[in-house]
Amino acid sequence: MLQDNAIIGQSGGPTSVINASLCGVVQGWLDAKPSGRVLGMRFGIDGFMRGEVIDLGREDAATRERLRTTPSSALGSSRHKLRDADFEPILAMLRKHDIRYFFLIGGNDTMDTIHRVEVYCREKGYPLVGVGVPKTVDNDLFGTDHTPGFGSAARYVALSVRQAGMLARDMKRVDQYVIFQTVGRSAGWLPASAALARSADDDAPHIILMPERPFDREQFLAGVKECYEKHGWCSIVCGEGICYADGTPVSASTTTDTFKNVEFGAMGGTSAAMMLHRMIGDALKWRGEFQVCESLAMCAADRISPPDLDEAFACGRRAVELAAEGTSGVMVNLVRESSQPYRWSLGTVPLADVAVRAKPMPDEFIAPSGTDVTPAFLDYVRPLVGPLPDYARLQGIPA
Amino acid sequence: MLQDNAIIGQSGGPTSVINASLCGVVQGWLDAKPSGRVLGMRFGIDGFMRGEVIDLGREDAATRERLRTTPSSALGSSRHKLRDADFEPILAMLRKHDIRYFFLIGGNDTMDTIHRVEVYCREKGYPLVGVGVPKTVDNDLFGTDHTPGFGSAARYVALSVRQAGMLARDMKRVDQYVIFQTVGRSAGWLPASAALARSADDDAPHIILMPERPFDREQFLAGVKECYEKHGWCSIVCGEGICYADGTPVSASTTTDTFKNVEFGAMGGTSAAMMLHRMIGDALKWRGEFQVCESLAMCAADRISPPDLDEAFACGRRAVELAAEGTSGVMVNLVRESSQPYRWSLGTVPLADVAVRAKPMPDEFIAPSGTDVTPAFLDYVRPLVGPLPDYARLQGIPA
Repeated sequence: MLQDNAIIGQSGGPTSVINASLCGVVQGWLDAKPSGRVLGMRFGIDGFMRGEVIDLGREDAATRERLRTTPSSALGSSRHKLRDADFEPILAMLRKHDIRYFFLIGGNDTMDTIHRVEVYCREKGYPLVGVGVPKTVDNDLFGTDHTPGFGSAARYVALSVRQAGMLARDMKRVDQYVIFQTVGRSAGWLPASAALARSADDDAPHIILMPERPFDREQFLAGVKECYEKHGWCSIVCGEGICYADGTPVSASTTTDTFKNVEFGAMGGTSAAMMLHRMIGDALKWRGEFQVCESLAMCAADRISPPDLDEAFACGRRAVELAAEGTSGVMVNLVRESSQPYRWSLGTVPLADVAVRAKPMPDEFIAPSGTDVTPAFLDYVRPLVGPLPDYARLQGIPA
Repeated sequence: MLQDNAIIGQSGGPTSVINASLCGVVQGWLDAKPSGRVLGMRFGIDGFMRGEVIDLGREDAATRERLRTTPSSALGSSRHKLRDADFEPILAMLRKHDIRYFFLIGGNDTMDTIHRVEVYCREKGYPLVGVGVPKTVDNDLFGTDHTPGFGSAARYVALSVRQAGMLARDMKRVDQYVIFQTVGRSAGWLPASAALARSADDDAPHIILMPERPFDREQFLAGVKECYEKHGWCSIVCGEGICYADGTPVSASTTTDTFKNVEFGAMGGTSAAMMLHRMIGDALKWRGEFQVCESLAMCAADRISPPDLDEAFACGRRAVELAAEGTSGVMVNLVRESSQPYRWSLGTVPLADVAVRAKPMPDEFIAPSGTDVTPAFLDYVRPLVGPLPDYARLQGIPA
């Protein structure tokens, strides 16, 4: 069944469980006891074109097992966007290593890469089986209930917001607010997941800013003030990519460079959380802090969500099974069978469908206020994150 | 022995184990089966003066046990600095609740508070036994080998830098650097602890910036470039309070307010890491990110260092034993008996000595380059943090 060789690559930003998917592919291949080898591309399709190919079957078993809970992309990654000139060198490398099975772990750009390489090879009379394994912390991939990597990043967010919220509550006579920023440029799945941090009504977060809703400065400040009057402090969570109604990112700096051009976002060294922090400081003269953890949520292996780990491995393994059956041109997807109790299965979706679409938070997951989530979202996200630690709270009986 | 009542309070910023010290005091008191009660002050000495006193003995046993690994200051905290006018209302509250034992968990300002309250009460003919329990993530408290709370915060830092370093290594064809900022305004113990993240020569961090050494822009950029040429990427860790040789904080913003005053630090919405990020962007035109986790390292209960938890509890418990023996005017301290194997014991130091001093990193812990630590520091810090997860690294045998 599985003859000739297989290759696997990792693409785009990592997740805490992307190596579990890699293990799934390698283990699936080795278990099928093929005559062929399972190879790895260093630094994605970019490294592959340069001939950076390693033999994953020759890694020792202990390393392969430990890899399962090792964060980041062990093969190295890239964000190379395929150009027409790339197909010929790719095909040459495939021929050189006698590769007939092509697996990539990634997001929608990656699925587009597999799709286009597979089509090109078919046209050139070189049959290639291409199967995609989903991955992204942002959870904005079309065609799957959720993506491997999201649950663990959401766990990092919810845990951080729960812990920092307790700190802000206990320090409310010193500081008035705390702002936590998540990654996820255009989708609000991660900031929304912070809602899991709550176990009581007054718990953090109080205000959740998602890119799916326009940001309004006056409404935001009014919300912060209202929250402060109610609780004596305020916890705010924002997605990095939140924008004003006219599309201007909140992270847009008012700092100008030496040519008087306004500097934006990362290269301008600003962030949405910092701008919110300045807004509150300017308008209310309060003290508080902003937390920008950036990609730490994408590699926190000690905060892996157990179901996420299992699913990531299973997706990798399933990709090999599909390839063995001769299925090509698909991405493995996660299908939710039930939320309570949580049950899932694996399916497939055509690569071409995944490649061109993104999946923002649907309206039914965002509260009418625009700054909170609905119970339906909590039902959706809770099983993906797993139970959070249940911290103690004093009753505080007056003496 | 223990008659009348005791009160315990928490002061300043929290740590992940400050509630373990609280549990130590409460448990120590209850185990001594006193006739008196163990009370808690809400929001530190500030709340105490306002009469916000609770009965900790009436919390149920399950809550008290769970509190041990609950982050933040469960009693609520304050940063109130004692004024002369405060002593009279404090003594009135002590009399009202018949309090003869006075425990505070905190840093040097807190030790000063206990000391002054004890002296005042003695002068007024109200005998009060005052014992301090050390706490601070910054580790800059005089008179103790290290402070409860430091080991867990150092663990958060080392773990984050290890994980983010692996991510940066695997993404080096996309981004060139990563910057992680720690808290600790004037002491470098926390940024220095990031050195534990390394297990191989090329591992993160590559450059450690501590407030004990002046920051030099040209030297920094030269170091970053040298590191990039060697490894293809660069990991930088900085303390929030690093300064230029003339004392100007690196976090100083070039942003001016409406009166054309330069805005500094948090209220200006900048950070040292952001300024380093801009420096690299301006000078080298590289891509990278900065991570500012702020107080998340002070409340990450899932990243508690096991020895830190034990020590924090023991310090609280020992404070009660000392009080029962009639010892007053001291802070419990941690004494290192041996580093390998790690062995510690408890001692005391006069409150008056702790109150007026801070403890920066000594010269023998900072490498001659000024941007790294010495093996002696690693021997010092390793047992406080506990073993870090050992992640897998592919051998990468060419196909």
